[in-house]
Amino acid sequence: MSELGITVKKAEQFSDWYTQVILKSELADYAPVKGCIVFRADSYAIWEKIQDFFNKKIKETGHKNVYFPIFIPESFLRKEAEHFEGFVPECAWVTIGGSSELEERLALRPTSETVMYSMFKKWIRGWRDLPIKLNQWCNIIRWETKATKPFLRTREFLWQEGHTAHATKDEADKEVMAILNIYKDLIESQLAIPVLVGMKTENEKFAGALYTTTLEALMPDGKALQLGTSHNLGQNFSKVFEITFIGEDEEEHYVWQTSWGVSTRLIGAAVMVHGDDRGLVLPPRIAACQVVIVPIPYKNVGREIILDKAREVLEKLQDRGISATFDDREEYTPGWKFNHWEVKGVPVRIEIGPRDVKKGQVTTVRRDTLEKVAVKDEKLADTIIEMLEEIQSNLFSRAKEALSKNTTEVETYSGFKEVLSKKGGFIKACWCSESTCEEKIKEETGATIRLIPFRKEKVFSDCIYCGKDADQVVLFAKAY
Amino acid sequence: MSELGITVKKAEQFSDWYTQVILKSELADYAPVKGCIVFRADSYAIWEKIQDFFNKKIKETGHKNVYFPIFIPESFLRKEAEHFEGFVPECAWVTIGGSSELEERLALRPTSETVMYSMFKKWIRGWRDLPIKLNQWCNIIRWETKATKPFLRTREFLWQEGHTAHATKDEADKEVMAILNIYKDLIESQLAIPVLVGMKTENEKFAGALYTTTLEALMPDGKALQLGTSHNLGQNFSKVFEITFIGEDEEEHYVWQTSWGVSTRLIGAAVMVHGDDRGLVLPPRIAACQVVIVPIPYKNVGREIILDKAREVLEKLQDRGISATFDDREEYTPGWKFNHWEVKGVPVRIEIGPRDVKKGQVTTVRRDTLEKVAVKDEKLADTIIEMLEEIQSNLFSRAKEALSKNTTEVETYSGFKEVLSKKGGFIKACWCSESTCEEKIKEETGATIRLIPFRKEKVFSDCIYCGKDADQVVLFAKAY
Repeated sequence: MSELGITVKKAEQFSDWYTQVILKSELADYAPVKGCIVFRADSYAIWEKIQDFFNKKIKETGHKNVYFPIFIPESFLRKEAEHFEGFVPECAWVTIGGSSELEERLALRPTSETVMYSMFKKWIRGWRDLPIKLNQWCNIIRWETKATKPFLRTREFLWQEGHTAHATKDEADKEVMAILNIYKDLIESQLAIPVLVGMKTENEKFAGALYTTTLEALMPDGKALQLGTSHNLGQNFSKVFEITFIGEDEEEHYVWQTSWGVSTRLIGAAVMVHGDDRGLVLPPRIAACQVVIVPIPYKNVGREIILDKAREVLEKLQDRGISATFDDREEYTPGWKFNHWEVKGVPVRIEIGPRDVKKGQVTTVRRDTLEKVAVKDEKLADTIIEMLEEIQSNLFSRAKEALSKNTTEVETYSGFKEVLSKKGGFIKACWCSESTCEEKIKEETGATIRLIPFRKEKVFSDCIYCGKDADQVVLFAKAY
Repeated sequence: MSELGITVKKAEQFSDWYTQVILKSELADYAPVKGCIVFRADSYAIWEKIQDFFNKKIKETGHKNVYFPIFIPESFLRKEAEHFEGFVPECAWVTIGGSSELEERLALRPTSETVMYSMFKKWIRGWRDLPIKLNQWCNIIRWETKATKPFLRTREFLWQEGHTAHATKDEADKEVMAILNIYKDLIESQLAIPVLVGMKTENEKFAGALYTTTLEALMPDGKALQLGTSHNLGQNFSKVFEITFIGEDEEEHYVWQTSWGVSTRLIGAAVMVHGDDRGLVLPPRIAACQVVIVPIPYKNVGREIILDKAREVLEKLQDRGISATFDDREEYTPGWKFNHWEVKGVPVRIEIGPRDVKKGQVTTVRRDTLEKVAVKDEKLADTIIEMLEEIQSNLFSRAKEALSKNTTEVETYSGFKEVLSKKGGFIKACWCSESTCEEKIKEETGATIRLIPFRKEKVFSDCIYCGKDADQVVLFAKAY
């Protein structure tokens, strides 16, 4: 295999495989600044698809996009104690502007609660001003000291962050769940990644939240990856930022708030979950290019006829809303092109050779199964549309099967440790709800409680750690 | 007029008027960090319209969106001497990451040439890799020391920056002009602002460019505002960043590059140009809300009939792709609502009262002319679509007339100074092409050469300053 191809196996060297796929598919590249990446055209295009889907959903439900400054004065971060402790260790600080030292150093936003809520205080007077439902797409800075990994953990990444204020806790609860459901829809229907949803424990919740809901996916190396969170902030921030309103009862009340976000990490998750030994495998709904057409001229016999047919095919597909590319570059061989587009994960390849022309057909190759099928010209567009849908649902089913296969129920701590070391994945176990047990397990095994499922299951053993009565079933895993 | 309304006249206190309009229309608010603003929902919605229009145009012409890091190592900025001098005085510097002092301080991008081109060097090997045509939408940091002004000059703003690399100067020249034409189309057809296009002088060109082309508009206070620039960077950056390619001739060559950008400044320009004493006046094509429907119940007689009719009207308009809002809030009076939506610049207001119901009509009020017209129900959608088009073109014509009225031809320096102090605007004058004359004029009057028009005009006098032979006609103005 040429340098263009992936030189390690996904099942054997997962981490190297991931890096190679990202670099060779040209999704991203390492930036000259340590811990940062460049989002190249193909990954940014996925991000744009995510934006389009999510923007539509949140605008339909009355949210509006805005943009707040990247700069957050240190004193703002200090206002909410837990929040400060959670984020300050990884802030990047601006200390000099132009040629002058700043009086107060400015953090580059690790998240925007504090800067946004200082404005909410100003904008909210009475119940007529509520709810406020805002969202912003922006860059986020977290000065990671752990090893960074493209899309999963970098010092700068892109995300959206939603921030809302409501008159009642009930409204805020509903908002948290409404957004979590949009995230689930986005991740499952578009990225074809099945997720588990539930609550975070007190230990794992967002710094400053009342409670945190989460979406967790399973990566092929057996580690969990948190793909999004939706928090009910309660009145924690409204109390420190003094965000009050005069209610219909003419009394003053603190608002109830939520915040929620997903990031470019989603791109990394899709790479990990769907990719194979040949490279990227993109779900059709997030692929900027869904179909690539490669002409296979044979000894220049009928070359023009083949190219004409390819152009016709291109037009036919584009007319039906399929995003297709015709790779008519003369300087590369068909074999080179097959490899190139396979690494890039394009869902369907269409080959057109002399034999296809003669038979009134094209040859299609599915990226997910590598299955090769001849399709008659007159059925082409319909067949391709169907095929793209099949690929989308096949990728989701495969991932769902992997998730279910790698979710193990255990009743004992020794069983827990064995599963964790041999197989990984999600481990379903019973827990007494004591933080100390949770912390000990983390210390001893590296696994954390990823979530407390919304769908309660019947307790089937004592607490996995202390052996006392358990009161709930939770999901553990090692996590990114 | 209530506190909600604008309390100063545009013609009398332009600067205060501008600030009031921006704050009271809720386009933006001052952020807690000095020199920064919050882009509230209504201004961000305009930015999204600009993004949609521009993205479509650049993608059609083969450009791709990407995202590069905000961090630029100081040594990168130092590589191109002019560029360094141009930007370093207004950089914000990150010196601390987490709890450690950085070894090399990092600038927050004032523009991204250097960080992008360090990657271009890596990505470009041979002629097959060219052209590269990238664009990014991002935040930009320039630590202004002059007084800031919402949208026009702030320490953080949003923009797009395009960066391309080509095999020949000719291709780069064509790219510069292609983009300039897209900008002209965007600004004139969408924002309804007429612009003059031309070249910058050597003194005024971009720091590091071979030449700069520009789009300049006239603001109602007689000052010019630069709305966009498109630069041919020549081989200045490719030489310092060693971006070479092996050509079809098998020789090594430096690439030719362009860069170009427009920013959220465009929003400020639209406010200045179209607004009036009642507030914002938005061109329909950039208005998030094009039509607002206000019910006018009379003593609660037939209240439900009026609301039903309003809902029907809303649906009818939305079905035709018009973005309409039904203001059915009971807690505000019709008069309050008229004022509210006028300040916000919504192009058309539809009033529905008992008389309108009886007569099978609605009452429309155009925001640009305040003209009130009854429209029969059966003609409603068609009439509104027409009306929105008329408003769009009326705003453009009015601005074009103002531009032409405020462009004055002068033959003498005393005439020049008189026009500048009494009337402002663009001053067309002949120039000998010597930088010293240009600098002296700037020093003595504050006016600069905004552009050398592409459409050459016949020289009609000696150099306005030195009296020697002039070789071209240029446009001077005081500028923001």
